[in-house]
Amino acid sequence: MVIDGVGGLPHPETGKTELESAEKPNLDRIASESVCGLIDPVGTGITPGSAPGHLAIFGYDPIKYSVGRGIIEALGIDLELKPGDIAARGNFCTIDKNGIITDRRAGRISTEKNAELCQLLNRIAIAGVETIVMPVKEHRFVLIIRGEGLSPELTDSDPQQVGLAAKEIEALSPRARRTAEIANEFVSQARGLLGSAGNNIPSANMVLMRGFSRRPDIPTIPEIYKLKPAAIAIYPMYRGLARLVGMKLLPAGVNITDQMESLHRYYGDYDFFFVHFKSTDSRGEDGNFEAKVHAIEEVDAALPNLLNLNPDVLIVTGDHSTPATLAAHSWHPVPFMLRSRWCRPDNVAAFSERACLAGGMGRFPAVEIMSLAMSNALKLDKFGA
Amino acid sequence: MVIDGVGGLPHPETGKTELESAEKPNLDRIASESVCGLIDPVGTGITPGSAPGHLAIFGYDPIKYSVGRGIIEALGIDLELKPGDIAARGNFCTIDKNGIITDRRAGRISTEKNAELCQLLNRIAIAGVETIVMPVKEHRFVLIIRGEGLSPELTDSDPQQVGLAAKEIEALSPRARRTAEIANEFVSQARGLLGSAGNNIPSANMVLMRGFSRRPDIPTIPEIYKLKPAAIAIYPMYRGLARLVGMKLLPAGVNITDQMESLHRYYGDYDFFFVHFKSTDSRGEDGNFEAKVHAIEEVDAALPNLLNLNPDVLIVTGDHSTPATLAAHSWHPVPFMLRSRWCRPDNVAAFSERACLAGGMGRFPAVEIMSLAMSNALKLDKFGA
Repeated sequence: MVIDGVGGLPHPETGKTELESAEKPNLDRIASESVCGLIDPVGTGITPGSAPGHLAIFGYDPIKYSVGRGIIEALGIDLELKPGDIAARGNFCTIDKNGIITDRRAGRISTEKNAELCQLLNRIAIAGVETIVMPVKEHRFVLIIRGEGLSPELTDSDPQQVGLAAKEIEALSPRARRTAEIANEFVSQARGLLGSAGNNIPSANMVLMRGFSRRPDIPTIPEIYKLKPAAIAIYPMYRGLARLVGMKLLPAGVNITDQMESLHRYYGDYDFFFVHFKSTDSRGEDGNFEAKVHAIEEVDAALPNLLNLNPDVLIVTGDHSTPATLAAHSWHPVPFMLRSRWCRPDNVAAFSERACLAGGMGRFPAVEIMSLAMSNALKLDKFGA
Repeated sequence: MVIDGVGGLPHPETGKTELESAEKPNLDRIASESVCGLIDPVGTGITPGSAPGHLAIFGYDPIKYSVGRGIIEALGIDLELKPGDIAARGNFCTIDKNGIITDRRAGRISTEKNAELCQLLNRIAIAGVETIVMPVKEHRFVLIIRGEGLSPELTDSDPQQVGLAAKEIEALSPRARRTAEIANEFVSQARGLLGSAGNNIPSANMVLMRGFSRRPDIPTIPEIYKLKPAAIAIYPMYRGLARLVGMKLLPAGVNITDQMESLHRYYGDYDFFFVHFKSTDSRGEDGNFEAKVHAIEEVDAALPNLLNLNPDVLIVTGDHSTPATLAAHSWHPVPFMLRSRWCRPDNVAAFSERACLAGGMGRFPAVEIMSLAMSNALKLDKFGA
């Protein structure tokens, strides 16, 4: 059970964090029956993005297995990627008659206009490859280049500031030269199509590309752990990450109640479930302390419908902290608890940052969670004789 | 704020460590507003010298970035080294007429006699290089060999015991052959000069050389962290280490009061300050428990004049422990605290070994301090999307 961004910081008036402020009898009861601790998703002082935060929880060294920006954007709109596909993030932008960028986001055009423009860009034809353009939100889109022998080792065209022209995309290694030509050809054709009177949106007359990347070659959870894993996540990016590591995607509905129902329905069909709860992170990023507290209470209220399944091993943690006072992801360690018949309980009786400090796991790297889970499920052999 | 050797061990009568015995209201108040913990400067069970202890605090892996004995001695007398300089530590010693060492320290001659003998050795001339001999203390001196194409890959001449002759200095790699010849020529000329009647100190009639080393090629703090760092340290070795990592050296006066005044004077000109307090370590090495307690109280009394600057991030720790009962550096973890608007306070309300055990950082490697400091200063980007 991943409660996204669950870790927090004290409210300046009460001195209590979001977790310490919430009414959460179920989380606290689990804590009293668990071995508790605090995880570092990436490392001391490092603020994790959602991808490295989740990869670490799933047992992958988040430094070794990095997921590029283009891939993240593609996962975020539920695009199914094929091996070898190159993905990049695109911005619709505005340039003047000399090609100088005047607005990197083309006035944040509507998602509907974005979809129209993507239709236009899907007319682009480049010999030997297929290019697929999909809208994300406002000015953001994803480009997929599909074909043989492509490489993501490319520079960005986005200079990251106005007053400059878009940069030529360059190959960072000889094997990426053809892909660089293809990417530049895409940009050139895009400029032609967008700049023509026909598109009726003269403001968004150019594209800026960045984060060319390929799906990382990552061993899957079934391969590594011989598990049959499934994900119950509502938001596309988390579903995408789950698929990346070999999880089957199950229906998740629209809220935690739906997710718990799905868990019940499929409980006999899989032996590992990843349930993702998003709004703790969203309310933290909003800077809304009270709303984050309520989101925690919403999870807590849904837990009886998980506990009645009596899982062999139950883990509750987060992929990173998102303190409402900071209104952003942060580097702070994240409360963690694992309950199983074979865990060694400690004296922790509440699920919070301060309480978990006294937990049996202490502070430890999130990447170690999976081996702890496996051992508590009695699925690991003894090491050595 | 580095309180050198601050960690200790319990007094056999009171059962309290030096920190637990001191009256230190300011340190304790900072602890109650901080995230606390215990650092391992090098690793479990490893007693750090001052150089690795400080390098770790400054963010350098002390195993990877080792600073040779010769360089340490040179830094310790404030010698400014040029790139390529080879430094070695020398002992004045006594040999009999067969060249057998009878006293490795020549009766611990006075520092004044040492200076006279160094004058004598500065007459040595070797083609193609410059040799510089500088007194340290009692029988110890530093030799600098300055020139092109030198290598520090040399064996010691010091056999580390009496009853043997000084060893020939040997090259450990082919590229060090010429430097080995130069070093042996230095020893040969030194023996000639010291052995002649003219020096009037027949007891110190030979030199023993060890720790040939070169200034490590170390990326600086401005390069790594884009900081503008300054050091306020009284003792030469710490100033030398600070300069090695790219810190500007500021006036430090003669005591902690002077140091705090310097901090105030230059506070607007830099964004990182290293303040070094020495006498906790010195009194620990003396084995003087009470004096070390008083040294801690001296730091504590100076702290209000630091706190009134209200730094964004304040870190107080030590480079290693120096328990007075052991009268030496030790391997014990060192209390640590970091105060910032964005730290997550724990329940620790005192700055001591036992209290910090319950801290939010737990026990952690000192080399991680800098990333924690940078994140608390909101100077780091998120890792991954």
